[in-house]
Amino acid sequence: MINVAVIGAGRIGRVHVGNLVRNRLACLKAICDTQEQAGKRLAREFGTEFSALPDEIIQNKEIDAVYICTPAHTHVDLMEAALAKDKYVFCEKPIDEDFEKAKRFVYANSARAAKIMIGFHRRFDQTHLHLRETIHSRRLGQVEQILINSRDPTMDSYDVLTFTGGIFRDMTLHDIDQALVLLGPATLTGVFARTACLVDPAFAQRGDFDNAVATFWTETGVTCTILNSRRSAFGFEQNIEVFCSNGSASLNTPTEMTFTVRDQKGTHCPAPMGHFLERYHAAYETECQAFLEAIEQGKEFPISALDGLNALRLAEAADRSARLGQPVAIET
Amino acid sequence: MINVAVIGAGRIGRVHVGNLVRNRLACLKAICDTQEQAGKRLAREFGTEFSALPDEIIQNKEIDAVYICTPAHTHVDLMEAALAKDKYVFCEKPIDEDFEKAKRFVYANSARAAKIMIGFHRRFDQTHLHLRETIHSRRLGQVEQILINSRDPTMDSYDVLTFTGGIFRDMTLHDIDQALVLLGPATLTGVFARTACLVDPAFAQRGDFDNAVATFWTETGVTCTILNSRRSAFGFEQNIEVFCSNGSASLNTPTEMTFTVRDQKGTHCPAPMGHFLERYHAAYETECQAFLEAIEQGKEFPISALDGLNALRLAEAADRSARLGQPVAIET
Amino acid sequence: MINVAVIGAGRIGRVHVGNLVRNRLACLKAICDTQEQAGKRLAREFGTEFSALPDEIIQNKEIDAVYICTPAHTHVDLMEAALAKDKYVFCEKPIDEDFEKAKRFVYANSARAAKIMIGFHRRFDQTHLHLRETIHSRRLGQVEQILINSRDPTMDSYDVLTFTGGIFRDMTLHDIDQALVLLGPATLTGVFARTACLVDPAFAQRGDFDNAVATFWTETGVTCTILNSRRSAFGFEQNIEVFCSNGSASLNTPTEMTFTVRDQKGTHCPAPMGHFLERYHAAYETECQAFLEAIEQGKEFPISALDGLNALRLAEAADRSARLGQPVAIET
Amino acid sequence: MINVAVIGAGRIGRVHVGNLVRNRLACLKAICDTQEQAGKRLAREFGTEFSALPDEIIQNKEIDAVYICTPAHTHVDLMEAALAKDKYVFCEKPIDEDFEKAKRFVYANSARAAKIMIGFHRRFDQTHLHLRETIHSRRLGQVEQILINSRDPTMDSYDVLTFTGGIFRDMTLHDIDQALVLLGPATLTGVFARTACLVDPAFAQRGDFDNAVATFWTETGVTCTILNSRRSAFGFEQNIEVFCSNGSASLNTPTEMTFTVRDQKGTHCPAPMGHFLERYHAAYETECQAFLEAIEQGKEFPISALDGLNALRLAEAADRSARLGQPVAIET
Repeated sequence: MINVAVIGAGRIGRVHVGNLVRNRLACLKAICDTQEQAGKRLAREFGTEFSALPDEIIQNKEIDAVYICTPAHTHVDLMEAALAKDKYVFCEKPIDEDFEKAKRFVYANSARAAKIMIGFHRRFDQTHLHLRETIHSRRLGQVEQILINSRDPTMDSYDVLTFTGGIFRDMTLHDIDQALVLLGPATLTGVFARTACLVDPAFAQRGDFDNAVATFWTETGVTCTILNSRRSAFGFEQNIEVFCSNGSASLNTPTEMTFTVRDQKGTHCPAPMGHFLERYHAAYETECQAFLEAIEQGKEFPISALDGLNALRLAEAADRSARLGQPVAIET
Repeated sequence: MINVAVIGAGRIGRVHVGNLVRNRLACLKAICDTQEQAGKRLAREFGTEFSALPDEIIQNKEIDAVYICTPAHTHVDLMEAALAKDKYVFCEKPIDEDFEKAKRFVYANSARAAKIMIGFHRRFDQTHLHLRETIHSRRLGQVEQILINSRDPTMDSYDVLTFTGGIFRDMTLHDIDQALVLLGPATLTGVFARTACLVDPAFAQRGDFDNAVATFWTETGVTCTILNSRRSAFGFEQNIEVFCSNGSASLNTPTEMTFTVRDQKGTHCPAPMGHFLERYHAAYETECQAFLEAIEQGKEFPISALDGLNALRLAEAADRSARLGQPVAIET
Repeated sequence: MINVAVIGAGRIGRVHVGNLVRNRLACLKAICDTQEQAGKRLAREFGTEFSALPDEIIQNKEIDAVYICTPAHTHVDLMEAALAKDKYVFCEKPIDEDFEKAKRFVYANSARAAKIMIGFHRRFDQTHLHLRETIHSRRLGQVEQILINSRDPTMDSYDVLTFTGGIFRDMTLHDIDQALVLLGPATLTGVFARTACLVDPAFAQRGDFDNAVATFWTETGVTCTILNSRRSAFGFEQNIEVFCSNGSASLNTPTEMTFTVRDQKGTHCPAPMGHFLERYHAAYETECQAFLEAIEQGKEFPISALDGLNALRLAEAADRSARLGQPVAIET
Repeated sequence: MINVAVIGAGRIGRVHVGNLVRNRLACLKAICDTQEQAGKRLAREFGTEFSALPDEIIQNKEIDAVYICTPAHTHVDLMEAALAKDKYVFCEKPIDEDFEKAKRFVYANSARAAKIMIGFHRRFDQTHLHLRETIHSRRLGQVEQILINSRDPTMDSYDVLTFTGGIFRDMTLHDIDQALVLLGPATLTGVFARTACLVDPAFAQRGDFDNAVATFWTETGVTCTILNSRRSAFGFEQNIEVFCSNGSASLNTPTEMTFTVRDQKGTHCPAPMGHFLERYHAAYETECQAFLEAIEQGKEFPISALDGLNALRLAEAADRSARLGQPVAIET
């Protein structure tokens, strides 16, 4: 049994708590949040201890692994503390809002990097895995263009969005990670991004954007274009199409039901499936299992801190490009 | 150049006139209809002669081929007259309302049968052809069940429907012909059919039905189920699915446009394409070309009078089954 | 907490055991199977008691409710014993292989009928529920034709199929129940069914069939056509389309993934989702919750013994029609 | 009757010749091509006169209108000559390879501009028209992002491509015109484009590209992203999706047939419909009709020389951006 504590009792913390409680490899020992009310409620709901002090969790020798589900700017400090106590760490993306801080942390901790797994849940989705295998098998030939379209169904509450580090580090980051999975790290060497505030002026007030289009490219001319929006009236959407020399492979958001009404106005099907929590329900479960299994079996984690850093480097560059109005070269 | 006359200036006559005028192998010599007004209008529109007397057409030595597009009960008499004058005949389905009369005609004229082609336009549709090839290639294995669903978008005017010979001889007949194309003639040996009047009491008043379900079967247990309705609020529909031992092949009605709107209520696509005239526009053209080419090149017609009789035999049996409330064996 | 025992440790028993263990309202007290090995294995896996004697379970006063997951011919006897001890009963379909026996049981126990729920899991599937609501709302007008197509991906092992009571009582029964849900009980008054053995002669050897087509009808002319096959090379399939006066509503089997490959040969998508256990995973969970919730809150069960009897009556009539080669009237 | 001559007997000239011959408003008087062989063959095929000298056509007082279907760099000179003789001009896109030359021509001829129609055939496609209406009706709210994906099925022969003016002026130009139709002229004020040669080095040798991604933007933050490739293993594709504040509208390339095979490997559908000539067959017919009808009825042409110039301005800017590696502001 692996004793686990979860730091951060927000939306995503709750997902991990649920999966840990159901997983036979884990024993959930504590939930921690500096906001006592939310933390206590979650702890009570799942019948576990509560602590308001992250340090208390980290000092607790009984605990083998911590989940870090707090705002992005706290990740690096918490990881450092946890690593110092030799704990396994599951850290939500991004590593940090600040790319330089994240870089220093990853490079300084390369010896201990094997103890960190970053949470890119889509990597555990069976359709994303199938896309990856299809592309890597080369049966469709060489990749030429990638098109990724990710849209959020409704604006998330500002309390959540305040701590995201902006649209590129929050939304685009997942799409970038998928591009890197498909193309390989250090392949994308430049980016041009364009942004706008079309949904809500609140984004502009925080120096953030609610619409973004970014095109990344490799040395050899392969491009990856990502469209993002914080508003999708028709529901959550996450699509990828990879155009290759011999064909294309694509994944689309499943609909809630395979149900069709036909009438005088045409054919009508239900909207896509909920938000990302419903869409990636099974992926989060598999991610949890992968983290615990790797610890139990002494295997390498499937997603490293370096993976997190690589994606963040590109998100950072895209953000810079959008603000400069110029293409940005990506250091590799 | 083949000199052609069209007898019958109704809806389907107009389709054939249009195709003949555009075809380089044909010269349209005359349009004939006992209803002078409609016939004259059509003749004027396409710049050809008009005659109110079918016999005048048939006696005309200049004319090589006639299209018979009149009500079903007149087909056999017109064909006999035309064959007596050694003309090529394109006859709309069914051969006749009365199966016995049709049978006597086909058997009595077997020596001259090579001069007759029956109009099953769907046989010239590229998707139907592709289905046929797929099934005959046996790459999906043995046929086990066939499901055909044909629905008319709106009730055709009563003037048209009066002369159809009822739902089985008019609508189901086309579906039966497709089943015979897929399975081979003389394979279906029994039928049970069930009918209803759900759309309009006018059908019942004429002793006809507006809804029908018929299941045909072979000696070896293969079934073919046909659903028909005179009402389809969502538009014209003609679908076939053939379930085989190693898979299934299906054809569906194309939509008018590949256009999609997505909003809060879901995904919306346009209705299917028009009525059968729009859906089978190209098939009617190819049918015309096939008729003329066979004459010009002295080849066999792709659809014989016997094909027409085979389908009518099954339609007749289905009608009998529906009226008796009992399964009916099909003579072969 | 409701103390539950599961009698029958086969494929479906395992599904219910899993759901009961995860449900907070239930406490799984015992698993019972006359086949000791299978029963003990399941009991060990889920950490519960094992009994080889159904009677032991039924005599156990601690147990509030029993799940009957044994072969169909044992259902009535087990239900009678359980009712005699005043237990709640969840009984898998069909009530019994023998319609007359099932009828006597249901009529004799009408006073205690409220303690029985029959397992028609599809009723708890969200897409089936949505179809039901859509049709009952009348927004598509009157129902005219129903088309149901259910195909099993591979032949189940003979050990399972021996006890099913044949294709109509095993497969078609679920489709019939859906038709009754859509149309209302006692609406279908006649049936004609046609069967074949095309997949494996083993079915014929047991007096069973592996292919079936049945058309049911109401007094007013509405039809319900059901296609079944024990073989579906392309995977599990369960589709319903309801044709109404103002449109149609349909449900289809979801595919395993929303993934598409396009190449020179066309567009390729994955096969449908697994077998019924994968497809109806969530429905089985909801069914379990519905059973337990009704007990806890003293509410009526959503599916009664009479529902089970109504569906069995129609399956019985379809089987009779197939064997007689004649339509069969259904007593109501 | 409008007397028409077609200058340029290549692939697209042949399309227009076919439509003119079938159109009742036109009388095709002559076909002209400096390459005698091709020109004579086409003239013979359609039974019309041939001339090897464009000037002969233009001097011919009998001719009311000319179709200019020659290489792009000859368009302006031919239009000037034709306008000088007061003829109506249908000119294929682009107005010219050289934007500055095109601009001088359009501005210098503003008084006679009403006699010119530019050939953007997609504007006459019913699905594109439906998209336009849907967006302009505002029922989906404000446009936020446009995504256009156009891919050619096979490399066109170099003889054709030599004269196109490059991927942006040849392929992207159509997509740009659609964006302008949806957004309005003079809305797009900047562009960043990225190109590559991934398909064939022959493109690079001519200073051209075979892959391109361009993002255009408006002052208010709306973006239009266009993906192009000269290679599409799965066939011709032209898709547009318009993301709006209340939903999205999209058009896709129709498949050749609505045909599906299902087997153990999944679901398989045919490839998209041919190349642009098959896909836009009806649009070219409607375009021809629109040109002739406007002349006959003295109405304004639906597409002006200024429309052609507006699209070319953006294509030119995209090309410049790709070559500079920098975003480019678009003069308006």
